[in-house]
Amino acid sequence: MNKMMTAEPMMTKDDVAALILAAKKQSGLSWAEIADKIGMSPVWTHSACVGMNSMPADKAQALVSLLGLPAEATGVLEECPTKVWAQSIPTDPCIYRLYEIVGVYGPTIKALIHEEFGDGIMSAIDFDMSITRIPNPKGDRVKLEMTGKFLGYNAW
Amino acid sequence: MNKMMTAEPMMTKDDVAALILAAKKQSGLSWAEIADKIGMSPVWTHSACVGMNSMPADKAQALVSLLGLPAEATGVLEECPTKVWAQSIPTDPCIYRLYEIVGVYGPTIKALIHEEFGDGIMSAIDFDMSITRIPNPKGDRVKLEMTGKFLGYNAW
Amino acid sequence: MNKMMTAEPMMTKDDVAALILAAKKQSGLSWAEIADKIGMSPVWTHSACVGMNSMPADKAQALVSLLGLPAEATGVLEECPTKVWAQSIPTDPCIYRLYEIVGVYGPTIKALIHEEFGDGIMSAIDFDMSITRIPNPKGDRVKLEMTGKFLGYNAW
Amino acid sequence: MNKMMTAEPMMTKDDVAALILAAKKQSGLSWAEIADKIGMSPVWTHSACVGMNSMPADKAQALVSLLGLPAEATGVLEECPTKVWAQSIPTDPCIYRLYEIVGVYGPTIKALIHEEFGDGIMSAIDFDMSITRIPNPKGDRVKLEMTGKFLGYNAW
Amino acid sequence: MNKMMTAEPMMTKDDVAALILAAKKQSGLSWAEIADKIGMSPVWTHSACVGMNSMPADKAQALVSLLGLPAEATGVLEECPTKVWAQSIPTDPCIYRLYEIVGVYGPTIKALIHEEFGDGIMSAIDFDMSITRIPNPKGDRVKLEMTGKFLGYNAW
Amino acid sequence: MNKMMTAEPMMTKDDVAALILAAKKQSGLSWAEIADKIGMSPVWTHSACVGMNSMPADKAQALVSLLGLPAEATGVLEECPTKVWAQSIPTDPCIYRLYEIVGVYGPTIKALIHEEFGDGIMSAIDFDMSITRIPNPKGDRVKLEMTGKFLGYNAW
Amino acid sequence: MNKMMTAEPMMTKDDVAALILAAKKQSGLSWAEIADKIGMSPVWTHSACVGMNSMPADKAQALVSLLGLPAEATGVLEECPTKVWAQSIPTDPCIYRLYEIVGVYGPTIKALIHEEFGDGIMSAIDFDMSITRIPNPKGDRVKLEMTGKFLGYNAW
Amino acid sequence: MNKMMTAEPMMTKDDVAALILAAKKQSGLSWAEIADKIGMSPVWTHSACVGMNSMPADKAQALVSLLGLPAEATGVLEECPTKVWAQSIPTDPCIYRLYEIVGVYGPTIKALIHEEFGDGIMSAIDFDMSITRIPNPKGDRVKLEMTGKFLGYNAW
Amino acid sequence: MNKMMTAEPMMTKDDVAALILAAKKQSGLSWAEIADKIGMSPVWTHSACVGMNSMPADKAQALVSLLGLPAEATGVLEECPTKVWAQSIPTDPCIYRLYEIVGVYGPTIKALIHEEFGDGIMSAIDFDMSITRIPNPKGDRVKLEMTGKFLGYNAW
Amino acid sequence: MNKMMTAEPMMTKDDVAALILAAKKQSGLSWAEIADKIGMSPVWTHSACVGMNSMPADKAQALVSLLGLPAEATGVLEECPTKVWAQSIPTDPCIYRLYEIVGVYGPTIKALIHEEFGDGIMSAIDFDMSITRIPNPKGDRVKLEMTGKFLGYNAW
Repeated sequence: MNKMMTAEPMMTKDDVAALILAAKKQSGLSWAEIADKIGMSPVWTHSACVGMNSMPADKAQALVSLLGLPAEATGVLEECPTKVWAQSIPTDPCIYRLYEIVGVYGPTIKALIHEEFGDGIMSAIDFDMSITRIPNPKGDRVKLEMTGKFLGYNAW
Repeated sequence: MNKMMTAEPMMTKDDVAALILAAKKQSGLSWAEIADKIGMSPVWTHSACVGMNSMPADKAQALVSLLGLPAEATGVLEECPTKVWAQSIPTDPCIYRLYEIVGVYGPTIKALIHEEFGDGIMSAIDFDMSITRIPNPKGDRVKLEMTGKFLGYNAW
Repeated sequence: MNKMMTAEPMMTKDDVAALILAAKKQSGLSWAEIADKIGMSPVWTHSACVGMNSMPADKAQALVSLLGLPAEATGVLEECPTKVWAQSIPTDPCIYRLYEIVGVYGPTIKALIHEEFGDGIMSAIDFDMSITRIPNPKGDRVKLEMTGKFLGYNAW
Repeated sequence: MNKMMTAEPMMTKDDVAALILAAKKQSGLSWAEIADKIGMSPVWTHSACVGMNSMPADKAQALVSLLGLPAEATGVLEECPTKVWAQSIPTDPCIYRLYEIVGVYGPTIKALIHEEFGDGIMSAIDFDMSITRIPNPKGDRVKLEMTGKFLGYNAW
Repeated sequence: MNKMMTAEPMMTKDDVAALILAAKKQSGLSWAEIADKIGMSPVWTHSACVGMNSMPADKAQALVSLLGLPAEATGVLEECPTKVWAQSIPTDPCIYRLYEIVGVYGPTIKALIHEEFGDGIMSAIDFDMSITRIPNPKGDRVKLEMTGKFLGYNAW
Repeated sequence: MNKMMTAEPMMTKDDVAALILAAKKQSGLSWAEIADKIGMSPVWTHSACVGMNSMPADKAQALVSLLGLPAEATGVLEECPTKVWAQSIPTDPCIYRLYEIVGVYGPTIKALIHEEFGDGIMSAIDFDMSITRIPNPKGDRVKLEMTGKFLGYNAW
Repeated sequence: MNKMMTAEPMMTKDDVAALILAAKKQSGLSWAEIADKIGMSPVWTHSACVGMNSMPADKAQALVSLLGLPAEATGVLEECPTKVWAQSIPTDPCIYRLYEIVGVYGPTIKALIHEEFGDGIMSAIDFDMSITRIPNPKGDRVKLEMTGKFLGYNAW
Repeated sequence: MNKMMTAEPMMTKDDVAALILAAKKQSGLSWAEIADKIGMSPVWTHSACVGMNSMPADKAQALVSLLGLPAEATGVLEECPTKVWAQSIPTDPCIYRLYEIVGVYGPTIKALIHEEFGDGIMSAIDFDMSITRIPNPKGDRVKLEMTGKFLGYNAW
Repeated sequence: MNKMMTAEPMMTKDDVAALILAAKKQSGLSWAEIADKIGMSPVWTHSACVGMNSMPADKAQALVSLLGLPAEATGVLEECPTKVWAQSIPTDPCIYRLYEIVGVYGPTIKALIHEEFGDGIMSAIDFDMSITRIPNPKGDRVKLEMTGKFLGYNAW
Repeated sequence: MNKMMTAEPMMTKDDVAALILAAKKQSGLSWAEIADKIGMSPVWTHSACVGMNSMPADKAQALVSLLGLPAEATGVLEECPTKVWAQSIPTDPCIYRLYEIVGVYGPTIKALIHEEFGDGIMSAIDFDMSITRIPNPKGDRVKLEMTGKFLGYNAW
């Protein structure tokens, strides 16, 4: 089918992410500043901007205003994303280290959750995360804090 | 070669882990209590007990005394482990959720580290982690906190 | 290490599953009958018996009594399992068809959940399932019913 | 070959799916409403619209009329699709949970089908499915119901 | 658990297959002769003997009598097998050629089934197959014939 | 390099396949009718048309005349194809069932070929196949017949 | 099943290969000498000894006599092997280099076979190979020569 | 970045390969004839033309003159290629047979090289190959001859 | 979304790499010369030019001046790259040999690091490398030297 | 076959490696000391001891004497190993970092080798390596030095 047939090609989350990155560069705002201005956390804000989370209508509207995005972007930011990652084992060193932590400490986290809470998991849906800098004379540290609701297995 | 040829078959980290799990069960101690008695954190203690980290000599000795393990176990606990995990994508739901978090939030963590620290990574070697329960009326939450030294890329 | 060193080799979930299958065969009981006698559903009962779920203490005790299992089995049935499946794409035709349904209808299920509930998932933890026979003149049908709690994504 | 050589580029199922999504957005209809208007179920309707099932001629015609699609779309909706999914293990959390259910409960479903019906499978071809919301004070639940014809293995 | 705990280790399909192969060797019977004596086809008979299909009770009994297998084997032959193959791409040249035929002619078979029958598949469950030798002056040929019930997709 | 540099972009097998599919649709001919008109079988004809086999010059010429393809297509149909399939395990249910048959019955086919012919294989090169409908009151059946030359292993 | 139940455990090709390697070591014979004594080539002889080819009865008998193997080995050497290799990409450098040659020169070999013979393949079944040393002042060279029957694609 | 920014888009090895194939078709020359005219072997010539080897300057010049390629192609033919093949297991039957030979005979080739030369490999870099037709009344044979320098492992 | 919507398409690291390669070709400079002129090492310089490392602002500026790149390239060279490699096992022989060295000598390097430094790793972040030619009458040698900071595991 | 049939089970490289590790532990010698006493480098010595390289007869004899190994070990150390690594992507962090270096810097090493030497590779066979500690006030560094013969591609 000729692409021209679709009179109104729909904007995708990738399109909006590209617009946001360009507008952010031009504005000189950091992710922390953008997050602050729309009243959300930096982790969630970045994630929703690059298309890995959906925005509530008011937050989408606030972001579109802040960065001067086209109005159509509001609806796109509100859509439920399909979360896809192409590399089952990430190659980028910064992301791989996180994967390695899951490989090394995954069974430990599982054992300690079970001991404390019983059989179940930490939710990755009812979940939040923050990243902060911890000053340290031997070299500053990255601190990741995440909490997820404990979900116990159902027996029926 | 007949296995009997090796007069002194060496104890492995897997052997010691099995001994620890059996002794722990018999003693009724939790991981938190064991960790407390040897003066270390629960995450590190469990990890070293199941063979994913090496113990300093004094900690290995303290653990062997606490759980009444054979003396040979001390040296085994001190050995540098070869960290192996068999499933590149974990199937256990409790561990998979951690993998999913890396897939969904990995690029976000990377972007925020770069914005705050510059090009580099959070070390998974000079690293620590804790797990705590956060009481919550809507259901208690699991809190994971991890810090790793920021390592900046070298330019030469 | 000589295996004989561990005076009390611990019973595993696999050991208990083998004992249950042998006792079930001898008893002539069906899964539905076993489930009924311990007051649980057949799906959950089978799953916990083969080591894919943990049993509450009273249910473990009831099962051990019913099938005449060794007392040690009670504790093993209560342990939190590590859920592992070896084939990322199952080969058995009966299980593969379920995998195929996920491949074909997964995006459809996702779209309809999002339309009805908003961004989120059906929990596989707070979850239950039943299997029933639907008589049909053209050939009886298998009916699978599953419900899982809707979990909405957190925005923070 | 110059693409211009093919005087009449054929519309594909992907093209039609894109047209349907755009028309659906503009019309403000839900999948349930579209399904209702063409007299089919929401699951099947969505699946056929995104190209994972073929439509009988009258249903294709009804859909084309309802959404004002080009006439050529009718034939495309009737074509037998080639069902392809790119990720053998899905990453999207909503779809992954379904995959996880197959991994955890697949052997249980198999055992219970065999006990009830004998050796065979639940068909994924002579198959139907529905998705409904189950109100629940602790949080509403997603209910998936599917039935498939039991197919017994042939012995010859 | 000490293996000795299970007083009655259960015979598996692999055990029975090994017993059958040994008895067949000793008896000098071909698969065709064994199949003939139990009144079934060679393909199905071999498949059930090596544990890829389940036998009706009378056929299992006939086979056990014919080859002088232990009585316990009858029940094992009747069990529903879990069909597992380890190599997603077979390496043995005789089996690989079949895989190659699926790769080369799969889309062609699909197209011709659709043209003749409409949207659907050839069942691999309600299925049979035979293998015969076709004499040919340029070299005899192997003939594979298989029929499977056409299953049309359900629209609901 | 600018694509315009190649004054005469060569037509590929994919281009010709697309032209054939469009011309076939317009002509209303079935694969069986096309095959009949060029004096070949439907399986081979479809396979060569979609680029998985090469055509002898007279057959290529006959096809080009029949469907009114550009003259350049004749040479393309005669070229030796590179046979590529992207999915090592096919997802389309119609093709997957064939893959499943190879997994389940591959070792059986191998055993029966060896018993009848000795060590060797059924050729997938000196090979032919037909697909026919077998009327059956319980539902018509798809019949696949294939013959391949037996090739015995060389000992040297 | 208790392993003791099978009164006569069957010798496998792996067992025979191990016996041959031990006998070869003790005898001090090279593969070339063994091959020469049974009147076959070194490549084929080694391949059949390690279980990747089947031996004609007279050659199996000759080998058993030469190396003083148990009589039962004769039949095992005659059996049709199932050819399995575990690493789809070999790691051993000596074997990997052959894999690399296929990757680098495979399309070239294909093109030149097609130009010389038409559409078809070099058989890996009706096949032979030799390995010789080519003296060379810059360092001796390994020479591999292989011939396989050209098999032309069938058109039907 | 707009592609137009790069004023001089560089010709790639793929571009040159396409030009060569088109020029070869027009010229009617075979690979053997092209190779002969530039004074090299057919295997190497084809390999360098399709971008899997680099050409010495004089050979590149000779080829460009022979086929009337643009002058820029000379430098491209001289570049060191990055050798990439996309399928770790090739699907094309002509190339797969070579892969199969490595799987079946790889350990044999390794054993015979070690017996003749000691520990080391046949180089795939200091390497050459030829392909010839061997007339044979039972069907002509393809002969592949390859020699590679023996490289012994270094001990240091 | 229409691509034209983004008024200022952002230059990517791939775009800049292509510009650098073109400018380098035109300038006739070697990597060693470019590195020398910006006061960095050849390994780091190449790596940063092809987008696998980020440049400090002054080095980016120096490179842009040296090669006459557009000003926009400066900022792109300073960006933190996402390091991606597509082939988990590289096919190019020059790169594969490095992979092979890791496979063969990885456990040896690990053992010697542990013996010398204790439990930990050689950093791949605080890391440098050089490549030099070692003249040798038997054939010159490539020398790779790399140093990385030893990072000891944290115990907490 | 009953294992007892092989009167003289052969010692394998794994057996010898286990004996060496036990003897090394008992002797208190480091790898550097063992290497020094047999007049070889630590990297090569460790590699040959764990079965990834073959030892010349005199070195094998020296090692056997030094560590008091059984005489049979000498021959085993001289055998040509089959180099196998199980993880195509290593999980151990110390080894993974080396893999990461190949991924990040592989194309750079390739480019610089080509610029300096022309088309070819660094041999991994005619190869040596050393590991040393570089004192550094900011933390000592691990230095890896490796040299391999440059092997230029053959044109023929």
